[in-house]
Formats: sequence, structure tokens, C-alpha cells
Amino acid sequence: MTPKPEAGMAPLPARMVDLIRKKRDGAEHSRAEIEYIISAYTADSIPDYQVSAWLMAVLLRGMSPAELAALTEAMLHSGEIVDLSDIPGRKVDKHSTGGVGDKTSLIVAPIVAAGGLTVPMISGRGLGHTGGTLDKLESIPGFNVNLTLPEYRAVLKRCGCALIGQSAEIALADKKIYALRDVTGTVESPNLICASIMSKKLAEGIDALVLDVKTGSGAFMKKMDDAIHLAKLMVETGTRMGKQVVALITDMDQPLGNTVGNALEVQESIDILNGRGPEDLAKLSLELAGWMFYLGGRVGSVEEGRTFAAQLVVSGRARAKLGEIISLQGGDATVLAFRDRLPTARTQVEVLANRAGYVASMQCEPVGTASVVLGGGREKKEDAVDPAVGIVLRKKVGDKVEQGEPLCTIHYNSDARLHEAKGLLEEAYRIEARPPKGARQLVHRVITAEG
Amino acid sequence: MTPKPEAGMAPLPARMVDLIRKKRDGAEHSRAEIEYIISAYTADSIPDYQVSAWLMAVLLRGMSPAELAALTEAMLHSGEIVDLSDIPGRKVDKHSTGGVGDKTSLIVAPIVAAGGLTVPMISGRGLGHTGGTLDKLESIPGFNVNLTLPEYRAVLKRCGCALIGQSAEIALADKKIYALRDVTGTVESPNLICASIMSKKLAEGIDALVLDVKTGSGAFMKKMDDAIHLAKLMVETGTRMGKQVVALITDMDQPLGNTVGNALEVQESIDILNGRGPEDLAKLSLELAGWMFYLGGRVGSVEEGRTFAAQLVVSGRARAKLGEIISLQGGDATVLAFRDRLPTARTQVEVLANRAGYVASMQCEPVGTASVVLGGGREKKEDAVDPAVGIVLRKKVGDKVEQGEPLCTIHYNSDARLHEAKGLLEEAYRIEARPPKGARQLVHRVITAEG
Repeated sequence: MTPKPEAGMAPLPARMVDLIRKKRDGAEHSRAEIEYIISAYTADSIPDYQVSAWLMAVLLRGMSPAELAALTEAMLHSGEIVDLSDIPGRKVDKHSTGGVGDKTSLIVAPIVAAGGLTVPMISGRGLGHTGGTLDKLESIPGFNVNLTLPEYRAVLKRCGCALIGQSAEIALADKKIYALRDVTGTVESPNLICASIMSKKLAEGIDALVLDVKTGSGAFMKKMDDAIHLAKLMVETGTRMGKQVVALITDMDQPLGNTVGNALEVQESIDILNGRGPEDLAKLSLELAGWMFYLGGRVGSVEEGRTFAAQLVVSGRARAKLGEIISLQGGDATVLAFRDRLPTARTQVEVLANRAGYVASMQCEPVGTASVVLGGGREKKEDAVDPAVGIVLRKKVGDKVEQGEPLCTIHYNSDARLHEAKGLLEEAYRIEARPPKGARQLVHRVITAEG
Repeated sequence: MTPKPEAGMAPLPARMVDLIRKKRDGAEHSRAEIEYIISAYTADSIPDYQVSAWLMAVLLRGMSPAELAALTEAMLHSGEIVDLSDIPGRKVDKHSTGGVGDKTSLIVAPIVAAGGLTVPMISGRGLGHTGGTLDKLESIPGFNVNLTLPEYRAVLKRCGCALIGQSAEIALADKKIYALRDVTGTVESPNLICASIMSKKLAEGIDALVLDVKTGSGAFMKKMDDAIHLAKLMVETGTRMGKQVVALITDMDQPLGNTVGNALEVQESIDILNGRGPEDLAKLSLELAGWMFYLGGRVGSVEEGRTFAAQLVVSGRARAKLGEIISLQGGDATVLAFRDRLPTARTQVEVLANRAGYVASMQCEPVGTASVVLGGGREKKEDAVDPAVGIVLRKKVGDKVEQGEPLCTIHYNSDARLHEAKGLLEEAYRIEARPPKGARQLVHRVITAEG
């Protein structure tokens, strides 16, 4: 790729192929080199095939703190940075590193907005075996995640929360890179994850950010140490840029809640806001909202924040706020009341236990992959997503199960790859004679700017 | 990428993104997985951006001998395998791993064909900072390297040699992968180099093969150990498939001959066949031809082969053979007699020595890159090549030089990147007060099937 000088583009330090080779050989990029790669890729003057090779080299060779800072800032400046200073009050957001069945954004955003803070939330699409908030939101008929910045600002002013994708003018580089990483095996890099999340979040015009860094079999960071490493990278990056940032290391050793799949997860989120729904999901949602209220200065402690969040659910104010957001973004808010307004799959089939005992553990990744295989996620970036398909878990870790009893239910529209999905789900459950010892904590650790 | 079952394609073991991740994590591919990647990419059902990420993972993670064998065979079977059994006599070829100024193919092929063996030579294009035989041949007006297999066979029958590219139905996968590697920093992998070369050469229908594995500053394998490693991989792969293969480890610590650039190198090759031209180039050409005559059973020893080759040059028969090949492939054979029939650059400029002394060493890579920067090679696979541009070396290692005396001459058509080329050439020469001690050998070592 011959860099061509273009107006407004960073000075061109070298040919792209030489930059790929440099990273491949473990050398450190200059700030100008990283700025060139990001601005040229955003301007479509470097092809996907060069960037994917570079991303693989970054993943396998790593980055220095200086390279990561340059990458995050280059990605941040690849698009518009929203100035929300004309909206009164503190702007707080949360972001999860992604897990299987993780739909907390759909629950936490309306709770926190109902509590008086502004939540300008920009989310992503499904990546690898994990789902994405945007894909989930789009299963609500009419819901438009592709607001322009003026529309986004208007919704935010009106109801204190807007849930959009990066189709806006924000972090343009991240949008392209995120889609490319998903299909090139370059998702699992702490540096790339950090730059992706932080560039997008810092572009939102927020004052504070609560990060939910997943660890366990269903997380990108399977090992606790890796999760802590990523959390520290993000907290450092955000703090250096003048934001209040905290990261919760939370458990993703089994799916969160009982549903995996876009419309199914929206329904479960609505259930939580209706005061029903699975305990693990409710508990983590209140924890995250509690931290957001605390960082946003709405309450004096995280504990107070948690209680405040629970009150907003019980009073129905959080549910009403979700309805407001849905309506303002063009969606059908009657989904809150009528379950059949969300897309449903044509057929269901159960996966049965082949022995009696207790669910000793669950592998999240095959569950997430099963949902992708059914059409609920993407295998290449051009793929469309089927909102209706997915899995409803009937048993989770610790549950007693009889032979022949359903472990989970597959919701599907095409049986082309049903067999594969079924195999993945059978593989996901490990059943043993005795119940597992002790339960894993939901929140393992909290990382603040102080460490 | 969702593999779609297609007629004649290997069974589909997994999604491409999972195969990328598998190699990224250092695991070993099954034969079926490698066959899938190669056949699906050849059929355009995997995008470039996935394959380039996989190639980078292969480069950084390596391959087992079983993976390399599977890769070479999958690439070999991705196209037609030529059956030359109806052409009498032994078919012998040579291949160089690529260097700067390495034009021995243009010299050796006509010599060996003039000596009565058949030379079915399939070559590549410029890769990284090194030139490619096809680009050089195409600087001869009218020369067609894109023969169909029946045309190729007809030329071979008629004059004992044909010089073509992979545009034919041969090793289809290699053609795509070679172009992609060139622009994604994935050239320098011994496994990928071995599979590329051997799949192409084994598809030619040859009985024997002489490999010229370069080592030194201008070679892909800068270190002797790496060159020996690659040579052994190739000799093992070829021998396992029933061919007589030998590899010469030869020196590429400075450019071979005095020219770098397509038409300039063709002219220098003609000079050699006219009994003029630089000594290093003449010597290595005779050495390679000598081995080819020996493996082809034309002579009883390599020494005899060398003498035979020299006689064919002196008698003018090799030069006449080159004329025959050029004519049969549609080219203007008057280039042999008239220097102005080859493309020439509009302008020349000299690079001058900034001090007096002796050329202590030369870096080949900046010389090769200078030629690419002038337009003589490609930076991305769609780039066209300017046949006329390049560099004529006036001084080489060991030469005495006065301050202000020309080190080399740049032949160029556009001054857009002249400054960059000049800088690269200045950087390439190291001048010291005293002459360097001793000269490097031209042939460092010979690797045979016995080791």
C-alpha cells in the first residue's frame, strides 16, 4: 500500500507493509505510525487484508503502554468527540467486555437514567461467540440504533439516555476494526480490546465509566490475571484522559441469566425491570447501577446506589424509562407489555440430559457459538443476524437434573446447522453425581485508579 | 466465513475464523483443515482478510512437518499438474529464493536448454524488496509470460525451454497466496516459502530441481542457519515426492551483478550470454547450470557441467536459445542485439560517495527497496511495475572510491519518491578507510537429500 498524502491526514511515516513487518518482528511503533494506520484505514486507503495481518501481529506481539495510548487516541480522534456540556448533570456510562447472555446494558441504562443521571451509551455488535447490545436492541420492532449525532443528542436531552451504535460519526476507525477483528481471530488482544472500548467510550462525552470485565469460561479473558490486566489497562487509559473510571471483575463462568439470543435476551431484561427474572442477572445489574450512581455523585456510597437502583425497579420507573427510550428511538414500546411483540422462532427443541446428577459446570463458549451457528451472531462481518433464534437455559450450575430432563431449549428457524448447535450445547454441560462445592462469586474484584 | 459445501471441495472441518484462532494459539492443523483453507481460498470462498491473518499466525507460530507436507500438497493439487512424459529426456529446473539483482534464471534457462535438457520454468513476480523473473521478462517488448498450458507445452517441445508465470492452470492457490503475502508482511516464513516454491515446481512435471537458497543481507533468510533450515525443508519435501533435489546456499550479502531493476537486469543477462558482464553473476550462473546438467544426467560431474555451460555461452548457442525462447513467446528478440529495444528511463542521477575509502559492505535491502520505491516493484498487489527504472551499481564491496565519485546511478521516470530512493542508496553503502578483509564465498554450502 502506497500511502498517498491527503489533506488532514497524519504525515506518512512508511509503507503499510513495512509497518506490518515492524510489528511482526516485535518492534515498537511511533505515535505517527499508529496515527497513520488508523487514519488511512478509516479513509479506506489501506485494504482490510493488510490491517488484519497487522492486527494478528499486534495480538501475538503485544504493544507498549505508549503504543496503546497512541492507538486509543488515534481511534478516538478518527471520528467526532461528542460535547455534552450543554446537558446539565453528570454523564455516566457502563461497558462490559462481553459475555454469553450478558444483557445488563438493557437493564442498567434505564435504571440509571430513571435515577437522574445521563447515560449516553454507544454499544457494539456481536463479536466472536458473545452477543452485542445493538443486535439485541434491533430485535425490538422499529428500534433504530443508527441515530445521527443531533438525533442522539436530542434523545439524550429528552429522556437522559440513548442507546446507539457507532454508525454515528463517532470513533470511525473502531467501527471498521471491530468488524474486521471479529472475523479474523484477532478479538482476544487486551490492547485491541482496551483501545476499542476506551476510544468509543471517551468519544461519548462522559464524565465517569463503570467497566464490567468478565472472566471465566465464557469471557474473552478466561483467566483472572488476564481480566485484571485488561481492567488495569482500561482504568489507566481512562484516568490518564481525565475520567473517573472503575472496573468490576465479574464472573462469566456460566451464561448470565437464562437466555442467549437477541430477542430472548430483550425479553429477559424486560422481565428483570418487571421485578421478575433470574437472580444472578438482577444482582449484577443492581451492582453496576450502584457504582454508576456512586461515580455519578448521585449517592454517597455504592451500597446506597444499589438500594436506589432496586427502588427504581420496584417503583416501575426504570421500566417506564425503557419504554421512553424505545419510543424515542422509533421502537415498539408495547414489547414491554406483550411478549408476542418480539420476534419468535418457528420451532423449539429441547436438549436432554444423558444422565442424572448435578450440573457441575458449564462451558459458555459452546453455548455462545451454538447461538451464532443458529444465526444469532455473525461468522463474517457481512452476515445478517436472526433476532429470534437462541437458547433458553433450563438448568444452570448447581441444579439437580434427572436423566432425560431438558437442560435447555433451542429456538431455531432453520435446521441446517441444528445438529451442530445441539452438539455444542451437549458439550457445554458437565453433569456429575454430586453437587459442585460452593458457588463462584459474581463480583470477584474492583479495580480503581488507585489499583 | 461460513464454509459452504461445494462439489469437489474437501470436507469442511470448521469455520475459517476458528482455524485462524487455532493457528494463532499455536495448535497443529489437521490435513483436512489445511486442504479446506487452500481449496476454499482458491475458490474465492474465503476473503483475503481472513487468509492474511492466518498467514501472519502461520509465520509467527510455525508449522509442523506434517502441516508443511499437507500445505505443499494442497497447493500442488489446487491446480493442474503438468505431465511432460511425452517430451523425451529429463526435465530440470532451478529456483532461487530471491535476492537483489538476481537474474540467473534468465541466463541459466537458455544455457541448459541449449545443452539438450528440457527446462520447464514457472516463475514468480517481485516479492518484498526482491525482484521477480516474470517482471523482468515482461520488460522485453511483446514477451508473453501468460501462456496457456497447451501453449507452454508447445514452446517446450519446440525449443526445450519455456518461461511462464502461474497465470496458467498451475498451483492456483499459490498464485493468490503469493500476491497476498507480498503486501501483508508474511513473506519471510520458511514454511510458506517452501510450500510456495515446491508446489509450483512440483506442478511443472520436472525430474530434478536445483534450488538457489540465498543468505546474507539481501536475502529473505539473512542468517546462514535460517537459509540451511529452509534448504532442508525444500530438499526433504521434494525428495519425499520422488524428485532429485539439491540446494545451494549462495551469497546475497550484496546485490548480484551490477543492476537492479527489470529492463536493466535483462540487459545484464544478455551481456553475460554475450560473454561480457560481471564476474559474480557469470560464476553463479555457470555453477547453477553445472548442477542442472549433472542432476539431469547430461554430464558425469558438476565440474563437467560447469565447463559444458561455459562452452555453450562462448559458442553463442545459449544466446541463440534465449532468442528462440523470446520469439516463441511473442517477444522482440532484437533486444539481444540492440540495447535501445528495451525500455529505458527518462532520467538518470548519480549517488555520490560522501567520503573516500573502500566499500566495506553493502546492505541489499535498501537497494531493493529503492528500486521498489522508484516503481520497479509492487507495494500492493494491484500495483503496476515500471520496467525501465532501477539502479546501476558503479561500486561494489571491496572497491576503492574517491569522495564525490559515483557509487551508483538511479534510472527513474518520476521524481515523486526520488529523494527517498536516494536516501536508501546512501544508507546501503558503508565506506571505510581500509579495504575489507577477504571476500565472502559465492556458494557457501550444498544441501542434498543425504544432508
